Amino acid sequence: MGKDLRQFLQVVKRLGANYYVEVNRLLKPKYEVPVLQHKLAKKGCFPVVYCSKIEGSKLPLVTNLFASYEMLGVALGITPERMKLGQDVILKEYRGRQEEIKPTKQVPAAEAPVREIIIQGKDVNLERLPIIHHAELNPGPYVTIGMTVSKDPDTGIPNVGIYRMELKGKDRIACMMIPNHHGGKIGQRYAELGKPMEVVTFLGHHPAVAMAVAAGRPLKMDENEFELVGALLGEPLEVTQAVTVDLPVPAHAEIAIEGIIDPTKMGTEGPFSEGAGYYGEERPCYIIQVTAITMRRDAIYHDLYPIHQEHNLVGQLGREANIYDAVKRAVPNVKAVHVGPDRQCGKLLIYVSLKKQAEEETKQAGLAALSSDEGGRMAVVVDEDIDVYDESEVWWAIATRMRGDLDISVHPGSMLTKTLIDATIPLDKPFPRRVTPPKDTWDSMKLEDYL
Amino acid sequence: MGKDLRQFLQVVKRLGANYYVEVNRLLKPKYEVPVLQHKLAKKGCFPVVYCSKIEGSKLPLVTNLFASYEMLGVALGITPERMKLGQDVILKEYRGRQEEIKPTKQVPAAEAPVREIIIQGKDVNLERLPIIHHAELNPGPYVTIGMTVSKDPDTGIPNVGIYRMELKGKDRIACMMIPNHHGGKIGQRYAELGKPMEVVTFLGHHPAVAMAVAAGRPLKMDENEFELVGALLGEPLEVTQAVTVDLPVPAHAEIAIEGIIDPTKMGTEGPFSEGAGYYGEERPCYIIQVTAITMRRDAIYHDLYPIHQEHNLVGQLGREANIYDAVKRAVPNVKAVHVGPDRQCGKLLIYVSLKKQAEEETKQAGLAALSSDEGGRMAVVVDEDIDVYDESEVWWAIATRMRGDLDISVHPGSMLTKTLIDATIPLDKPFPRRVTPPKDTWDSMKLEDYL
Repeated sequence: MGKDLRQFLQVVKRLGANYYVEVNRLLKPKYEVPVLQHKLAKKGCFPVVYCSKIEGSKLPLVTNLFASYEMLGVALGITPERMKLGQDVILKEYRGRQEEIKPTKQVPAAEAPVREIIIQGKDVNLERLPIIHHAELNPGPYVTIGMTVSKDPDTGIPNVGIYRMELKGKDRIACMMIPNHHGGKIGQRYAELGKPMEVVTFLGHHPAVAMAVAAGRPLKMDENEFELVGALLGEPLEVTQAVTVDLPVPAHAEIAIEGIIDPTKMGTEGPFSEGAGYYGEERPCYIIQVTAITMRRDAIYHDLYPIHQEHNLVGQLGREANIYDAVKRAVPNVKAVHVGPDRQCGKLLIYVSLKKQAEEETKQAGLAALSSDEGGRMAVVVDEDIDVYDESEVWWAIATRMRGDLDISVHPGSMLTKTLIDATIPLDKPFPRRVTPPKDTWDSMKLEDYL
Repeated sequence: MGKDLRQFLQVVKRLGANYYVEVNRLLKPKYEVPVLQHKLAKKGCFPVVYCSKIEGSKLPLVTNLFASYEMLGVALGITPERMKLGQDVILKEYRGRQEEIKPTKQVPAAEAPVREIIIQGKDVNLERLPIIHHAELNPGPYVTIGMTVSKDPDTGIPNVGIYRMELKGKDRIACMMIPNHHGGKIGQRYAELGKPMEVVTFLGHHPAVAMAVAAGRPLKMDENEFELVGALLGEPLEVTQAVTVDLPVPAHAEIAIEGIIDPTKMGTEGPFSEGAGYYGEERPCYIIQVTAITMRRDAIYHDLYPIHQEHNLVGQLGREANIYDAVKRAVPNVKAVHVGPDRQCGKLLIYVSLKKQAEEETKQAGLAALSSDEGGRMAVVVDEDIDVYDESEVWWAIATRMRGDLDISVHPGSMLTKTLIDATIPLDKPFPRRVTPPKDTWDSMKLEDYL
């Protein structure tokens, strides 16, 4: 059996309440699920949350699937014990896996759980899904972690992207493809050709699937995101043919929404609660005319809370891998790269640690980091003794190793200003020695033997 | 009965293992206690640590008394439940108490537990105390949280300060009074007068005592730290007369070391593992010739790990109160002040939140903060919606509200460069609205009803 959402839920369930909780009380589709996630986050808790009853729907809802950096590690098959030895193992595993591109495997519809139920024509009703309303200024409920498949009309190569989708009616849903992203470019090409654009949005799969789709890896137009999905899953993604559109859909997804976009007619969606924690304004978007909904007999709806760090984390390892590669090209002695702030959305900060051998390396590393990552607003470069996965250590490095007049450089821009902080120890000046616990004593003592 | 160390230990013991742990295995005086504290901190654990057996001594040792900001609240009598509603209650309580100056209360020696055992003359042996060795480059064991009482030779007013004290022999111990601090000035005055300087160093009392002594409150030379002790304790500090020197000593201390300094003869001490996490160089210091040790029959030795955040936290509320007052004078609409980084030593960062009403207020507030606090290296000013006690929110404000080219100002100095970051939303430009959870839903839902 392939990896899928329910197999992953079994994994986190076995890891206990830090990784998986169930809510069996009836929840309203307006605000209640996000508020639970928000309250958990405030307490420093980031389990997967399975909600068995959402008012107005027969389907259960699962969320917080990417709620912590550690959870990404679990999705990549790393045990919590291994992660305790150092969170860098997560990016390392990701970087290894992403090279192992795997073509999809076509399976017949009869073997595809996503095809167990097929709803077409006037029976189509998106309102039966537990699509929820996340924030007060959002105009209505949104599908927040749907993965939308389309096809380049010239090459036939599928494209998969995550676009926010405002529910517009029983058989209509918005799809906000940013014009300069692949999906948007494909839409423009259909418009030029005067052709409708077929799409299928699938929901609910193993988290590695969305992590691959959201990776923001600088894929070329002719690369197929489904192959990166297989790489992260560690097995080929099984796909089957959609019912009403000529597109592949993952066979082990929970739900698929098939439809047609008229790329010449834009609608609007928003304002929307975006991943930096602020409302984005109303924007033009495509409208999908839904032609079919297919799903498993006992389908689970997958949601994502847009202002929770899960929104940023779903694609974070892709970003970190890009940044790491860029920094490594500039400064081979890079040690680790991590994107923060931890425990918050708005992950616009890049922490880079390196074993500095020449003074200029911090600037090279920081500029490489900032230039390789669209969202990066500020990079902080630290020495190798600083654990970039422990933000308080990064703060400590800033507090004790940064000299504002020498170590801050700013790169202003009309849209985005980028700032670089060098919080490394200068090589060319005397600097006090850091106190570290004596290694022998550190290695020989185990807390559990004493407490 | 007055508040003292053992009464406080009962309080934290009742609060459970997050607040108090006992180590009953034999510990070596070299490194082992600090390594346990360091390992606990790495795990995010900050309980008081009571060690019943230290090799070479019959006395137990207690440490981590100021290990977390929350523990300071416990020392001020605030319940963990109250602190959960907002950590600002701690500084508020402190600021209230510090105004309630209380003169000391003199008690006869017979009623002073610290006088239960008196050791004088050739029986004096500091090596019988569990004075421990904290870090590899330190030349030997140090008393790290001894409070040393002296007396201004001109006014007779007692002075109390915490000075690091390197063990130099059975009856000799170094005392590093920084020349421009009160103790150092008093020493210089004795030197000018050609008189010996009497001192008594007491160890082990209710944590509010050290918090008052370490407050770094800008006391004038003629103010008596013991009166601030009474203020923070909420009751007059009971003192008794020392045995061999003409000085008051807290009656409910665990241990007192009496002695004489020849202020014309300097010794040296160090290098020493200092509170920013780096080694400080060897420095000139006074040497105390010990004349008596007095203690309780079952005395507990109090240690402090110098590169643990407890070193910074012991005086932190005093710093925060100073900064708060200074900012309040500049910008009345200040909301909160906190010093970081949390969970680390080297607390050189100041976070200020305010309800900004004019653009220039952030700079006024930041400069007031930096100028009022000797140690402050960087101030970050945020809006009132940011919780300065949750550092990840401060990072988030920097990530999403700071523009490097407009919002960073640097104040270079030959000794210390100070940096000011304005991470507030500009009043004079359009800025997206923050997404916050709907208040009604937030207020009506309690996690425990759902999980």
